[in-house]
Amino acid sequence: MGQAESAAMAVARAVSQERLWQRHMAIAQIGATGRGGVNRQALTPEDTQARKRVLAWAEARGYEAVIDAIGNLFIRRPGRNPEAPPVVAGSHLDSQPTGGNFDGVYGVLAALEAMEAADDVGIATERPLETVVWTNEEGARFQPTTMGSAVFAGALALNAALAATDSAGISVKTALEQMLSSLRITRHREFRFPMAAYLEAHIEQGPLLEERKKKIGVVTRIQGLRWFQVAVFGQEAHAGTTPLRLRRDALAAAVAMIGALEELMRDASDTVRFTVGRFEVFPNSPNTVPSRVVFTIDLRHPESGMLAALGDRVEETCRARAGRCDVKVVETLNAAPTVFDPRIVELVRAASKRQNFPSIDMVSGATHDAKFMARLCPSGMLFVPCAGGVSHNEAESARPDDLAAGARVLAEVLLKLANG
Amino acid sequence: MGQAESAAMAVARAVSQERLWQRHMAIAQIGATGRGGVNRQALTPEDTQARKRVLAWAEARGYEAVIDAIGNLFIRRPGRNPEAPPVVAGSHLDSQPTGGNFDGVYGVLAALEAMEAADDVGIATERPLETVVWTNEEGARFQPTTMGSAVFAGALALNAALAATDSAGISVKTALEQMLSSLRITRHREFRFPMAAYLEAHIEQGPLLEERKKKIGVVTRIQGLRWFQVAVFGQEAHAGTTPLRLRRDALAAAVAMIGALEELMRDASDTVRFTVGRFEVFPNSPNTVPSRVVFTIDLRHPESGMLAALGDRVEETCRARAGRCDVKVVETLNAAPTVFDPRIVELVRAASKRQNFPSIDMVSGATHDAKFMARLCPSGMLFVPCAGGVSHNEAESARPDDLAAGARVLAEVLLKLANG
Repeated sequence: MGQAESAAMAVARAVSQERLWQRHMAIAQIGATGRGGVNRQALTPEDTQARKRVLAWAEARGYEAVIDAIGNLFIRRPGRNPEAPPVVAGSHLDSQPTGGNFDGVYGVLAALEAMEAADDVGIATERPLETVVWTNEEGARFQPTTMGSAVFAGALALNAALAATDSAGISVKTALEQMLSSLRITRHREFRFPMAAYLEAHIEQGPLLEERKKKIGVVTRIQGLRWFQVAVFGQEAHAGTTPLRLRRDALAAAVAMIGALEELMRDASDTVRFTVGRFEVFPNSPNTVPSRVVFTIDLRHPESGMLAALGDRVEETCRARAGRCDVKVVETLNAAPTVFDPRIVELVRAASKRQNFPSIDMVSGATHDAKFMARLCPSGMLFVPCAGGVSHNEAESARPDDLAAGARVLAEVLLKLANG
Repeated sequence: MGQAESAAMAVARAVSQERLWQRHMAIAQIGATGRGGVNRQALTPEDTQARKRVLAWAEARGYEAVIDAIGNLFIRRPGRNPEAPPVVAGSHLDSQPTGGNFDGVYGVLAALEAMEAADDVGIATERPLETVVWTNEEGARFQPTTMGSAVFAGALALNAALAATDSAGISVKTALEQMLSSLRITRHREFRFPMAAYLEAHIEQGPLLEERKKKIGVVTRIQGLRWFQVAVFGQEAHAGTTPLRLRRDALAAAVAMIGALEELMRDASDTVRFTVGRFEVFPNSPNTVPSRVVFTIDLRHPESGMLAALGDRVEETCRARAGRCDVKVVETLNAAPTVFDPRIVELVRAASKRQNFPSIDMVSGATHDAKFMARLCPSGMLFVPCAGGVSHNEAESARPDDLAAGARVLAEVLLKLANG
């Protein structure tokens, strides 16, 4: 065993399950709803307060914070080589309006825990280690989602992000200025600052790890996504007087389309994610044949070829089942899959195995900040189980030992990257 | 040819297409929306004004009006035998909020036209002839529909009807008192007053007559109706992270149920009317697997046996396609078919034939006041075409010659019944 490897294992062992859990509980108090969850939307006083709490823990260790123009916060544990690009890990502290206590928070606290564990066992690294808090990952108050990482990576213009407003008309610019004046961080970081690697730990937000009794999800990629809106146009008619053969029933046509789409999307491996989540009927009256239905399609697949092939057949499939109705299909979103760096993926897989945590390779169904970081540097993710796969929900729940297991794997990988 | 028959034919010939049309246009001005239709909801000042216009035409002929406690208005042309139960025809003057110029109005004006045509050719009848204006047929402002005829026939308690309120909290009792004080009709009629027969002329509100190029629909029955509400319970889940096999997707289950119900309801004769008109999804978000869907079923059939057999299979059909979801099926309405008096039906059929108006036997898909009158006396209906079958719509349209044809058939049948 080399020196880098034994150092990494020592830090992994030094991860404190108790400290990590207590910090989750401390952050959970900020914006607590009283029903077990939090409302800590981006750039609110609660979001600012959560950052201050994390900054206070960092300050106690002597870590320095820098911030960029969209409010992404980087907390640095210096390396022996101060000029070397840092190894970065983190996630976000903002939440959905009825969010849980682990989504995002875990990735930040696990990264900080790895840095502190290294301190606790007195292990230095060649490259600096950093914990990042991305701004507005959730996109609940301000759209789009993953705003901070998108701006950092150059995928979203800063001015566009600053101009976004919430439902009260307050802009990101205004809310961000308030946060910055409260945080009082003087050191500034440029976008696309060079980094050696990026890691993000997250709760799975899905049921697979729990179902398969695994502790670690080795995330190989984030699946690609295509959204469609299908509008079906028929004709309003009296439900009692109009024979079926003379109807142009938009709901009946929409139901036939969805049935055909389900056939199209069926796969034995259960890899395709196909969801009709929104379905609006006009005039939506029990005794009137519907004249119009609008429904959405959320289609995801980890392989860009399959995503293209399936998505490209949506319109023809709908047309073939339109009957006497008209149909208009519009693609509203098209995001390619993100493939994580094979070396990072292998490090996560190997660390899980070495630490005897049962793991499986997984595809992330949800989007994360790691998607944009993968454009800038070798990146990867790991998942830990959450109860029932429930997330974006105040009932979101995770076990202290699972959170610690993920933090230990993260620590080992970060230390290897920082010394490798 | 007997005397009664030749008298009936003379009156039918005396029907004035011009007068009938002009009166429709006069009533159409009362509550006109400026977009070709009317808003003349029950017991509004506009409804009262339309009744006053009809009463003025009646008064000019010397006809006397009586009214009952729910505001049903009866205009009498005396018979030679004043004690004989009258032969009654009519419909209603109230409209939907965006209603047309013929629904209901036609049945009232055609009945009045028959009485006036008899005057014009100086023909007396043995029994009195009456034109009835039923209160609140539409049920738009106050529920239920066909309120006046239901109370008259004893199918709905007067107190229950008077207690119904509109969306502003005004009761039928209050609105009715205002109408009655404005109409100043002193003669009162009891509910279930004996009648010799009841006839109702109406626009078809469906496309069949137009499609088959017929002038008269001989209505043999009003189809029966069963309403169901189906609630499907699944589980909210992330559209990206949850494999299809682990989902409890309420929308997918509802779509499967509707597909199976369509199979169940399929019939070669196209007699079954099956409509899913309302479909509500929760939370109705594009990237969330729906946790709940509620949809309605409107099922109609002219045969009570078929209506029972099909309706009784709705719940098991839904359950069989519920998959991993739960389902609750509630029947919210069950109305048996109304079978019209064969003698009246034959009189309408024969009069159409004698007057060389192409006719077909039809089932009424919609409900009408005749449904309740059929419980009290021999009853029947006839339909005339309306453009595209469009009704309950400001675009509702009918041709002057079609309206006159129906009025001529009505006049012949009324005269035969009044002298038979």
